[in-house]
Amino acid sequence: MVIQPINDLVAIAAKKGIKEAILSPGSRCAPLTLAFARHPDIHCRTISDERSAAFVAMGMAQQLEKPVVLVCTSGSAALNYGPAVAEAYYQQIPLLIITADRPKEWIDQWDGQTIRQEEIYGKHVKGSFNFPDEFSNEDKVWHAHRITNEAINLANSYPAGPVHINIPLREPFYPKREEMLDFKKDLPCFETVKGNSTLSADDELKLGESLKKFKKIMVVPGQQKPNRAIRELLGKLQEDGKAAVVTDAISNLSSSNSITFHDTFIPHIKEDKDFEPDLIISFGKSIISKGLKLFLRASGATHWHISPAGAYSPDTYQGLSKLIQVSPKSFFGFFSKVEPGHSQTFVQKWKREDEKIGKRFMEVLSSARFGEYQAVHLIGEKIPSESRLHLSNSMAVRYFNFLGLKNLPFEIVCNRGTSGIDGSNSTAVGCTFTTKDAVTLITGDMAFFYDRNAFWHNYNMPNLRIIVLNNHAGGIFRLIDGPAAQPELEEFFETKQALSAEHLAKEFGFAYQSASNSYELRAALDSFYNKSMEPKLLEVFSDSKTNAEILQSVKAQLKGA
Amino acid sequence: MVIQPINDLVAIAAKKGIKEAILSPGSRCAPLTLAFARHPDIHCRTISDERSAAFVAMGMAQQLEKPVVLVCTSGSAALNYGPAVAEAYYQQIPLLIITADRPKEWIDQWDGQTIRQEEIYGKHVKGSFNFPDEFSNEDKVWHAHRITNEAINLANSYPAGPVHINIPLREPFYPKREEMLDFKKDLPCFETVKGNSTLSADDELKLGESLKKFKKIMVVPGQQKPNRAIRELLGKLQEDGKAAVVTDAISNLSSSNSITFHDTFIPHIKEDKDFEPDLIISFGKSIISKGLKLFLRASGATHWHISPAGAYSPDTYQGLSKLIQVSPKSFFGFFSKVEPGHSQTFVQKWKREDEKIGKRFMEVLSSARFGEYQAVHLIGEKIPSESRLHLSNSMAVRYFNFLGLKNLPFEIVCNRGTSGIDGSNSTAVGCTFTTKDAVTLITGDMAFFYDRNAFWHNYNMPNLRIIVLNNHAGGIFRLIDGPAAQPELEEFFETKQALSAEHLAKEFGFAYQSASNSYELRAALDSFYNKSMEPKLLEVFSDSKTNAEILQSVKAQLKGA
Repeated sequence: MVIQPINDLVAIAAKKGIKEAILSPGSRCAPLTLAFARHPDIHCRTISDERSAAFVAMGMAQQLEKPVVLVCTSGSAALNYGPAVAEAYYQQIPLLIITADRPKEWIDQWDGQTIRQEEIYGKHVKGSFNFPDEFSNEDKVWHAHRITNEAINLANSYPAGPVHINIPLREPFYPKREEMLDFKKDLPCFETVKGNSTLSADDELKLGESLKKFKKIMVVPGQQKPNRAIRELLGKLQEDGKAAVVTDAISNLSSSNSITFHDTFIPHIKEDKDFEPDLIISFGKSIISKGLKLFLRASGATHWHISPAGAYSPDTYQGLSKLIQVSPKSFFGFFSKVEPGHSQTFVQKWKREDEKIGKRFMEVLSSARFGEYQAVHLIGEKIPSESRLHLSNSMAVRYFNFLGLKNLPFEIVCNRGTSGIDGSNSTAVGCTFTTKDAVTLITGDMAFFYDRNAFWHNYNMPNLRIIVLNNHAGGIFRLIDGPAAQPELEEFFETKQALSAEHLAKEFGFAYQSASNSYELRAALDSFYNKSMEPKLLEVFSDSKTNAEILQSVKAQLKGA
Repeated sequence: MVIQPINDLVAIAAKKGIKEAILSPGSRCAPLTLAFARHPDIHCRTISDERSAAFVAMGMAQQLEKPVVLVCTSGSAALNYGPAVAEAYYQQIPLLIITADRPKEWIDQWDGQTIRQEEIYGKHVKGSFNFPDEFSNEDKVWHAHRITNEAINLANSYPAGPVHINIPLREPFYPKREEMLDFKKDLPCFETVKGNSTLSADDELKLGESLKKFKKIMVVPGQQKPNRAIRELLGKLQEDGKAAVVTDAISNLSSSNSITFHDTFIPHIKEDKDFEPDLIISFGKSIISKGLKLFLRASGATHWHISPAGAYSPDTYQGLSKLIQVSPKSFFGFFSKVEPGHSQTFVQKWKREDEKIGKRFMEVLSSARFGEYQAVHLIGEKIPSESRLHLSNSMAVRYFNFLGLKNLPFEIVCNRGTSGIDGSNSTAVGCTFTTKDAVTLITGDMAFFYDRNAFWHNYNMPNLRIIVLNNHAGGIFRLIDGPAAQPELEEFFETKQALSAEHLAKEFGFAYQSASNSYELRAALDSFYNKSMEPKLLEVFSDSKTNAEILQSVKAQLKGA
């Protein structure tokens, strides 16, 4: 039987600009599967492990900045989406999650693949809708069209995020041989036309007056997509001595005029009051550097957050006093025209410290023993422009942040919404489905093996380049004082694991190379980005203990700089 | 710092009989990890992929019939437990799920690994508790002790199930070198002493009268653990012609006196009113046979469900009229003394049909081409007594049910709570942690690869025997009329997948054999159960199309019997 409102849902989604869907196999979801697969404007892929499927969809939506559809069958399938849904929620990535369900009367009657699916994503979706389960009354058809419109609009509205439509379906699920699916043209399609919020002359006057009262202004962009205009505006602010601009790697906004070695030098300066800002201006999402975060919390600085819309703003530095609801570009355009209090010396101090580390860094790192730190540096040098670099939690992204690289010609992606290790591979795989540019993933062994099912599908990823930093353990635990001192370190924190990625590479048909020292790594990297038919995997072996020693020793030498 | 109430939680859990914990690595959960790892009476294992960890714990608790503890860190880790938590909920398996969290004030402030964990398992836990986040007041210590007691009692009370304690923790997480963990002896430990509910003389009189009014009584046990006493009582009921006893494989109650070929012959008899019962008596959980379920729903029979406690009872056959709150053993003890209406012919009809299929079955199956059907039969013959057989969803358990085996000398386990494919490997792995008897897993390729991280840990499983029925697809979709007729069958329903389990076996150090015909399979099975140091994996290759044809042809021949 054909359920017309299901086809309408798909037709409305297409009309509203949705072009990609990730389906997972199932029988109850068949009307959805068939409608998505047969719609001419929606490209479908199928991925069997729903945990990976959801991270793949998220990795696509992250690039496309449009909702990607997820479709799964009833039962625990929906729960396997859970980790990616939470990540998308905190990373503000739009997803349209569609779960097939049994009609309500059959929940809890011991039928197969039947759980309590309504609101199953709890507080990690922007909205949760239940589709009608029959359409005897025309109002129900109208309701179904309305739910579809509302859900997609909600996913797209700022801040973007995942929305859930739960769809109860009765047998028969399949069309008869002669039944064709009809995608109607005249379906109700309700659009949101977004206005641009700008500061009034009066607000500008007041904010300008406020800004002048601050003498030590620091701009701290959180995680976001690259934006050349904002990068230039911020670079200019620091150049003009108006503000110190501190850019974590995931801000995608580092420039020759921004501070990037803060994660290394904060421990050296944290007692010096002159480094404390009196105003922090933030925008975007989270930052990585725990050192910076704690330093800013302790500073007691006033904090302004810039966000185009939405009433809620995290108080990351415990000093939030203004939420300014305009786009960062418009705010910094305004700021660049204001002359704030004298922050010159403050900005100079930050700049000098950054330059000091910058000058010594290469020398110290290249004279260090070979380990993950050097490996990440060598790899960083080879990453092509116009590409995407995925960094997994937890050490890969930290090492990369330590490098202090400026003016990166590629986009950095990392799952810092929930900061889990659970979906880095899949997110990178999703990214390869959206671009022909190179997609590099630098990951630790734990994150890599955790999400190995990312590769269990039938689609090509010739542009995928994976670097596995294999120290056979969760190396981060050896770098924190607490667990490193416990007798349980190896079994219960690092959780030593014996695998090498070689078997996996063979299994999935990836080109495989390995390196255990800088010569081998350089040699492997030489041809790593040459075009290929299959993904390439480069495994860098190092020792967890040695890595910890190197990190300590580099830090100590840089402190002495 | 040592947080004494965390140690108290562990000490109370031990005092209440908890002996096993599955930990996953993390820093925020460190006080829990250390307390569990250092408690002398609790055996801890660590598993890095929380999705597998939770199914492993469930597989252990399923055997032990006592709560197993799960501990994970904050953030998406908790969501990865989701699928196993729902499975445990519907399978009524006790779990004590402990998630570390940030203190409430730090939720949604863009700190790492921080999500909204309170009530994160929604409606799939029996209870959800939030631990105090500081203990300045003695009442908070009392509250923490109380939560621990309540949660464990709730997990154990009938019907058993998962409970969740969310524990906000502040840094520092680690004890100093000189700090020892103290497990106190005199902690409050609040016990439940369960009474046995029995029928009063008056109730027995009334139920006896009611029973006499029915002429065609059918007993349909749902999924449960083996129980010799009940098996004998039911066998006697059918032998005496008082009731037809229809036993799915997962009921673990089949006997030479019970009906086991129903899944094969229901299509032959479903139009014959004489086969319809007028009273269905059920107990335990779900059944597999969809044919039986639909037949019983259509029969309009009255339905009594036997369950020791709890007000809710599923109305699986749409005719529920009595929930009898005593143990099945006590009810059938009573029933065996009652002389119901004349059901002799009814019982005879079911018995004859069952015998008819039973006689022809072996002949038809052994003359069929080699495929999964025959493979499951050949394997079934070799499974040792006193062992556990895990069957995965969806075809493995169905094939096994078709075999109609009686008086099985081993226990059958299958995740029929939510009937997902997501955790079969891990459930079997958990089982190996509780017994030295052989643990056999028969699984399809989809379920097997889906849950491959089940094997990613450092513990021995010498008694694990895995049979992968690899047809490179989700073969069930070809067996259902609907999807089989769609052009999207292969890509979006079967989702063909190319892998063989050989790489995986090599990677994890399993002994590997494969078979593509009955000679090879018999040869491989000959030594399959010989003792070994490592798990053994036997991969049986077959073709999805051929399997579908064989199933149709066997059915057709048996119909003609």
